[in-house]
Amino acid sequence: MIKNILSEFLGTLLLVCIVVGSGIMGENLSSGNDAILLLANSLATFWGLYFLITIFSVNSSHFNPAVSLVMHIRGEIKFLTFLFFVFAQSLGAMLGAILANVMFGFEYIEFSEKPRTGVNIWLSEIVATAGLLIVILASPKDKVAIMVASFIGAAYWFTSSTSFANPAVTFGRIFSDSFAGISPYDFPMFVLMQFVGCLAGLGIYKIIFPQQD
Amino acid sequence: MIKNILSEFLGTLLLVCIVVGSGIMGENLSSGNDAILLLANSLATFWGLYFLITIFSVNSSHFNPAVSLVMHIRGEIKFLTFLFFVFAQSLGAMLGAILANVMFGFEYIEFSEKPRTGVNIWLSEIVATAGLLIVILASPKDKVAIMVASFIGAAYWFTSSTSFANPAVTFGRIFSDSFAGISPYDFPMFVLMQFVGCLAGLGIYKIIFPQQD
Amino acid sequence: MIKNILSEFLGTLLLVCIVVGSGIMGENLSSGNDAILLLANSLATFWGLYFLITIFSVNSSHFNPAVSLVMHIRGEIKFLTFLFFVFAQSLGAMLGAILANVMFGFEYIEFSEKPRTGVNIWLSEIVATAGLLIVILASPKDKVAIMVASFIGAAYWFTSSTSFANPAVTFGRIFSDSFAGISPYDFPMFVLMQFVGCLAGLGIYKIIFPQQD
Amino acid sequence: MIKNILSEFLGTLLLVCIVVGSGIMGENLSSGNDAILLLANSLATFWGLYFLITIFSVNSSHFNPAVSLVMHIRGEIKFLTFLFFVFAQSLGAMLGAILANVMFGFEYIEFSEKPRTGVNIWLSEIVATAGLLIVILASPKDKVAIMVASFIGAAYWFTSSTSFANPAVTFGRIFSDSFAGISPYDFPMFVLMQFVGCLAGLGIYKIIFPQQD
Repeated sequence: MIKNILSEFLGTLLLVCIVVGSGIMGENLSSGNDAILLLANSLATFWGLYFLITIFSVNSSHFNPAVSLVMHIRGEIKFLTFLFFVFAQSLGAMLGAILANVMFGFEYIEFSEKPRTGVNIWLSEIVATAGLLIVILASPKDKVAIMVASFIGAAYWFTSSTSFANPAVTFGRIFSDSFAGISPYDFPMFVLMQFVGCLAGLGIYKIIFPQQD
Repeated sequence: MIKNILSEFLGTLLLVCIVVGSGIMGENLSSGNDAILLLANSLATFWGLYFLITIFSVNSSHFNPAVSLVMHIRGEIKFLTFLFFVFAQSLGAMLGAILANVMFGFEYIEFSEKPRTGVNIWLSEIVATAGLLIVILASPKDKVAIMVASFIGAAYWFTSSTSFANPAVTFGRIFSDSFAGISPYDFPMFVLMQFVGCLAGLGIYKIIFPQQD
Repeated sequence: MIKNILSEFLGTLLLVCIVVGSGIMGENLSSGNDAILLLANSLATFWGLYFLITIFSVNSSHFNPAVSLVMHIRGEIKFLTFLFFVFAQSLGAMLGAILANVMFGFEYIEFSEKPRTGVNIWLSEIVATAGLLIVILASPKDKVAIMVASFIGAAYWFTSSTSFANPAVTFGRIFSDSFAGISPYDFPMFVLMQFVGCLAGLGIYKIIFPQQD
Repeated sequence: MIKNILSEFLGTLLLVCIVVGSGIMGENLSSGNDAILLLANSLATFWGLYFLITIFSVNSSHFNPAVSLVMHIRGEIKFLTFLFFVFAQSLGAMLGAILANVMFGFEYIEFSEKPRTGVNIWLSEIVATAGLLIVILASPKDKVAIMVASFIGAAYWFTSSTSFANPAVTFGRIFSDSFAGISPYDFPMFVLMQFVGCLAGLGIYKIIFPQQD
């Protein structure tokens, strides 16, 4: 149990460190061409999700409160475990952003000033989170890592929000004023939309895919 | 059966949403460098095809009337199923383009003004569709997803039409006036060439590859 | 047997079409930034080699006289088969370049004027061909496709010749005056270096890797 | 045993040749856009690590004194083997940089003048090496190649040092005054940090992951 919580903590920490760090590196190098920056950001996140989910799946590899919530609803984890996971994921996410800041020579914490708001952005978060949940629930167990990585790699590009789809990662991105950041003011609406998306994803999954029970 | 039709609908919807959405995102970010744009477009489509075919293959994952036609010719689906699939794919394709438009803050429907015509473009669609069918028919069953994704990823680059190879996706691309769009006037000839290509692919497959029966 | 020869023909045709076509597409789009062009070229070739070797391996998937030669030396194909393969590969390579030219609206045949010469370029072809042969001989049978694709993807970047490593593909590239082309005058030395490289690769393989017999 | 040492030698030689060579190629082509350069460098290294580890794993495929040290601590190789491996890896790394220099028409040896120093860079090397060791120790045996490749691909982007994480490769990079180089003056501190990181990785692995014994 403690190893599962530590895995959620360290996995989410590294995930946010990869998302934020690759964004900073891209910003440093890309001379203002944001398409190259998002290409690097999406490729690094693809590689990162793949190796993180693969190694931590022996313990627990949600790295995402929306995923933990659906796993609780489906009876795979208890409510108390869910709470511990969300706490570990959120703390890990914050420390992951801080680690990225420090590795690139920034202040420990710089609150993001990047606005991410608007009806079309919110719709994107619903679509992204619903899609992520469907992919996780419908994937063969031995392919979850590559499937999640592929979905997020694509979703960075086909949603206007670049697909956060994860309340903990969204929380972590508050603490770095760089490419992958999000202003604290826009954080609550993102989480609300992700909550809606994760329930929508669960519903669509139950309608379309064959159910064991 | 209803789940198969819903899978064709939702899968094609998401496929077009990925193709069109990543094209819009690329256009927004790439400062006019179309090679970076097509790199992003092809990588997002690669990831998207991989995860879509993998999850929907438990039901049905053609997402393409040309593929459904060949499956009907080979006796794998009935004619009525074929008709339902084509309708579901076409409706899904249109809604996928609309979803991409809305997520990026455009009008629900904007007819594409992008001309895609000429003998060399038409030849490209024959080659692309023939190649796609050969790849689908000749692939080991457990590798179809990664094979189709790899073929389309390459074909975005080696054909002058960027390889639509899919009448439903071509139909959907009419409804977005962006990088991945196609003018309604050029739609019929694309579909005709794809029809020729899919029969050519079936023929070449029968000549070159070992046949079970 | 005839299906094996047809597979070598069609596979090499498509391989050269992918190499040359993606080079032309990249040139058309990249506004003179050759790093993006080689990125697209290497990614398209990676995807292409992967799907071509995977589907044609039920028959024969050398697509390369240097590979066929080593297979003959190792007793896996007869000398007459080797000759037929080299002829099929060379004819396919030429037609693949022509197909790419036509798809992109060029003349059927345009002899390349791109010089590729110099001691360091020649050394690159020895290294590239030796490396390719070692990778093919040392790979587990079920991973040859992804291994060859990965090797060539990397070798486009770490050799100064962009790693042709294939006499038939080198021959085909003569017929397109575009990014991936090679001047006919520089063709013979490339083939000679590839011959040296393929024997060197076979020798190194025998020294370092465990041998069945 | 001699084949294992030769594998460590040739594998590390090729790894450094890929890292340095793709850096030079990228520099030659990228017109000063370093994000495209690092994209090419990371993709080539990803492909390279994947094929190198896959083929040499029948013998030995550490290519990294930090990995060999941990394998010695865990009792998988003897101390004398460890010493031979480090020597073979270091010699291979130097020759790999020289081979890259020669293939691109540079002097055999050009000492790098690229400074890589600072507390945040050193921290990056600790994080990168710790992460690499955790990934190697926690990966399923049949996935080590793709896992290491994915980790390094991501780590090129999310650490400020571009993640050397390997004392032998760091040593080899001294001998090429190009994108991937490192000044000899900054070499010792990198190795020290990698030593710290590799022990930290071993410790974290033991705490979080289930242990056989």
